[in-house]
Amino acid sequence: MESAVILIQCPDQRGIIARLSEFVFRYNGNIIQADQYTTDPQNGRFFMRLEFTFDPAKVPPDHLEREFDILAAGLGATWEIHYASTVMRMGILVSKLDHCLVDLLYLHRSGELRVDIPLVASNHDAVRPLVEQAGIPFHHIPVTPDTKPERESTLLELVRETTDFLVLARYMQILTAVFMEGYRGDIINIHHSFLPSFKGSDPYRRAYERGVKVIGATAHFVTVELDEGPIIEQVVERVSHRDNVDMLKRKGRNLEKLALANAIQAYVEHRIIRYENKTIVFV
Amino acid sequence: MESAVILIQCPDQRGIIARLSEFVFRYNGNIIQADQYTTDPQNGRFFMRLEFTFDPAKVPPDHLEREFDILAAGLGATWEIHYASTVMRMGILVSKLDHCLVDLLYLHRSGELRVDIPLVASNHDAVRPLVEQAGIPFHHIPVTPDTKPERESTLLELVRETTDFLVLARYMQILTAVFMEGYRGDIINIHHSFLPSFKGSDPYRRAYERGVKVIGATAHFVTVELDEGPIIEQVVERVSHRDNVDMLKRKGRNLEKLALANAIQAYVEHRIIRYENKTIVFV
Amino acid sequence: MESAVILIQCPDQRGIIARLSEFVFRYNGNIIQADQYTTDPQNGRFFMRLEFTFDPAKVPPDHLEREFDILAAGLGATWEIHYASTVMRMGILVSKLDHCLVDLLYLHRSGELRVDIPLVASNHDAVRPLVEQAGIPFHHIPVTPDTKPERESTLLELVRETTDFLVLARYMQILTAVFMEGYRGDIINIHHSFLPSFKGSDPYRRAYERGVKVIGATAHFVTVELDEGPIIEQVVERVSHRDNVDMLKRKGRNLEKLALANAIQAYVEHRIIRYENKTIVFV
Amino acid sequence: MESAVILIQCPDQRGIIARLSEFVFRYNGNIIQADQYTTDPQNGRFFMRLEFTFDPAKVPPDHLEREFDILAAGLGATWEIHYASTVMRMGILVSKLDHCLVDLLYLHRSGELRVDIPLVASNHDAVRPLVEQAGIPFHHIPVTPDTKPERESTLLELVRETTDFLVLARYMQILTAVFMEGYRGDIINIHHSFLPSFKGSDPYRRAYERGVKVIGATAHFVTVELDEGPIIEQVVERVSHRDNVDMLKRKGRNLEKLALANAIQAYVEHRIIRYENKTIVFV
Repeated sequence: MESAVILIQCPDQRGIIARLSEFVFRYNGNIIQADQYTTDPQNGRFFMRLEFTFDPAKVPPDHLEREFDILAAGLGATWEIHYASTVMRMGILVSKLDHCLVDLLYLHRSGELRVDIPLVASNHDAVRPLVEQAGIPFHHIPVTPDTKPERESTLLELVRETTDFLVLARYMQILTAVFMEGYRGDIINIHHSFLPSFKGSDPYRRAYERGVKVIGATAHFVTVELDEGPIIEQVVERVSHRDNVDMLKRKGRNLEKLALANAIQAYVEHRIIRYENKTIVFV
Repeated sequence: MESAVILIQCPDQRGIIARLSEFVFRYNGNIIQADQYTTDPQNGRFFMRLEFTFDPAKVPPDHLEREFDILAAGLGATWEIHYASTVMRMGILVSKLDHCLVDLLYLHRSGELRVDIPLVASNHDAVRPLVEQAGIPFHHIPVTPDTKPERESTLLELVRETTDFLVLARYMQILTAVFMEGYRGDIINIHHSFLPSFKGSDPYRRAYERGVKVIGATAHFVTVELDEGPIIEQVVERVSHRDNVDMLKRKGRNLEKLALANAIQAYVEHRIIRYENKTIVFV
Repeated sequence: MESAVILIQCPDQRGIIARLSEFVFRYNGNIIQADQYTTDPQNGRFFMRLEFTFDPAKVPPDHLEREFDILAAGLGATWEIHYASTVMRMGILVSKLDHCLVDLLYLHRSGELRVDIPLVASNHDAVRPLVEQAGIPFHHIPVTPDTKPERESTLLELVRETTDFLVLARYMQILTAVFMEGYRGDIINIHHSFLPSFKGSDPYRRAYERGVKVIGATAHFVTVELDEGPIIEQVVERVSHRDNVDMLKRKGRNLEKLALANAIQAYVEHRIIRYENKTIVFV
Repeated sequence: MESAVILIQCPDQRGIIARLSEFVFRYNGNIIQADQYTTDPQNGRFFMRLEFTFDPAKVPPDHLEREFDILAAGLGATWEIHYASTVMRMGILVSKLDHCLVDLLYLHRSGELRVDIPLVASNHDAVRPLVEQAGIPFHHIPVTPDTKPERESTLLELVRETTDFLVLARYMQILTAVFMEGYRGDIINIHHSFLPSFKGSDPYRRAYERGVKVIGATAHFVTVELDEGPIIEQVVERVSHRDNVDMLKRKGRNLEKLALANAIQAYVEHRIIRYENKTIVFV
């Protein structure tokens, strides 16, 4: 038996759930979990995540997909299918701060995060030992203003075919629109702030100066609009006047690890649908 | 157009969602929200909440129900249906502490909580002005050990036909099994503790003595097993050594209001299914 | 016996705590709670809250204050003293939304919030019954662009002598610099957002459009810089894609009540020291 | 300059803070942070944490301690002093589950947690590579019911002189009273539950079966009463009916890491005073 997840979105219309679930039933599939969301009862947009098992010996996946495509076309839907037997390949980009990297390597090693990690790349060499100890290829791709275009295309070469999605685990270089168009998969970033507060650099210092009583971290998809991509996950923690900038940073690192790990977990379980500049995250 | 919610549970089996959603489609209904949960992919139990609109002029509700009953019987399911046009009637029992009562009266008056409140009953007379000011009938039913059986049957008479469910908003009398069998609706209680810690009386004192760093409140259905009914909602808050018993009680009152309000809101929106000693709460 | 709180701030220097606590000891006072904070071990600023009991029959308060002033002058300190026997007078300004008002009236009536409320003023007449039922004088002061200066000066007349501080419990009029200079006490506002995100109007809609996963509310002191005054308290709650604007508003109302009540409680217990654009809140 | 922390507790009495702070002043010390707590204004118990810098060239620590002892004796106080120049030595005991261990090793390596780790001991050999990779001596001390007394005394030998305190980072063996009397330092345990709920084994399964909506983890000092020692830190997280036992365990692991790291951080910063069966934790 194979397990699959279909993510689909289309204009809302009567009978969609009946047609989708009937489709699974027709091919002897068994729905494991069905989640649905409609933006608005009138003229809304419909989103569904359909997780089901089926027998690929009886229903070849390519046949299933062809048939589903016909159904989806009738609904005016966009959709994607993911099979549990296919493990997603996650590339990691990182700079010097390694707390998120360490956490991801641990979650990978312990089996909690079900991904392959074909490579880690960094504009610094500092995290090399950590990565190689984990048995993962490490690439040092230093970047200067002069070399940026060239190095970014080296990076793109490296990840384009070998990874399904990228995680910026405190990668302090801004990816250009050229890179983002060249790379076909999603890119998940962890921003060390509770967006949209304190977009940009040094958010903990700015949070300190503003005297906030709660700080947070935000995992989001990267778009060409810096720090404006769809938010996937946010976590927060209370702070007080006693927390100076260093203590905010320390607390912030925990929040960053947590937000990023939650976001990636939801992503590799195919629980996220992007729509406009938002995410539907089925829990 | 009428809006309805069906709550259904049955042994998991292939094709359930298809059959349920096809049923709605057949009667020209339009699914607003569908939530489903299966305890286990193998031999699990299936739960669904199906919210949909339909035209009662074309499909009379009694016909819809008869037809659905046939479908449900085939699935071995238990089910219930609720119509949006029917406002639930909530009876409130309370003793002296009135913070939850005040909150519920406010939520009712402001329209946030869509219920009728046919009556408030109390074993004390203290909250009478508050209730009558809100234009709601108040019943003072004092209870002593001697008079308990008699007064409880007075209470039962009062609420049996006039209410659909009861809320114990810090009602400090234990309802007997006789009452609970006599009353057909659900009874929701707020327990001033983070169950199962500190079951029974004076939980804030016991929490203080144990030196806990987090306190909570629990809204649950009442069963004959005291403080053991299915949990609906729990909310928590950090405390420190500085919080003495009085401060814990003060913080606790906020938690109690919040947990109870959340639980009732979920209940009147028909988002809760009881199963074994647990609740499925579709959010 | 009288109980007093001294709030003091000055440049950090050796021996301050010794001198302050010796002062209390010299006048036979008994320290109930002492809290201290220094911004920085080197050249920092020192803040202290000193709560103590003393016998006013033996040490008249005016003598205590004169003596303390001499000590404070030697430290280059600014300070204030509050006596427990003096209940603070809180004026409330409100517009149409009454959830914060209701909560404050309840906390006042139940004795949880120890203040006098000499008046409630509103630019709408909607909350009058609520206020008058609570036995509190209500003033309807409608405001139009034309009448604003005149009405604001009416308002100022009303509150200047009768109140020690003001609470804007969802008061949707912007107070002018003229008003703020004329009024000598602090003004506490509840902003229906997790500042500094979504400053200004309609924050829940903007939070919805940005697709945030956590919302919050902020209680802060009002300054002439709109929404930029020192933050006192922030509370937050997770939300999801299912929360539409109305649901965010509903959740937000709870957050607003909580943040505002916490802030006022800290204020009337004299736990807050303002410094630059921040607050020190001793818990 | 040396930095020191004094932790002191005694019956409350007039003038304590004056005497303690005057003591620091007399020896030319500079108070960095002073935190104080009294259980009760009448006949309470007084607790203080006093962090200050002084010049050991002018005031030798042993002289300071002798003088302070005289002061403390006059107050009927118990006290301890810790110098910042002395790094605490933390021994770690662990079984198979390594998430807390990994987190502690990372916090150690990154400098966030300022301790020495002279050794890690385990009743299993599984975590050896992890520990040795970090350059820390690893001891495999298998335990069976038969060998328990003997192995425990081996363990005691190993840690008695080399460590200042022990951390049970998911160590699944119960330490006997003999061990605890033999070991002079504190022992911190992480319990995979929100104590006092679900004391004992398999708490996530029991939490699942009880249908709780919030889970937690508790870091506490170990006493001979199993799971009854003073609580240091508790962290919690919301869960739902969708969280099966495995998902609760996964979420629980994060809570355990967080609670344990927070507790150890407070401990090594000498922010914790034990009293009766509780902790005063100065933040």
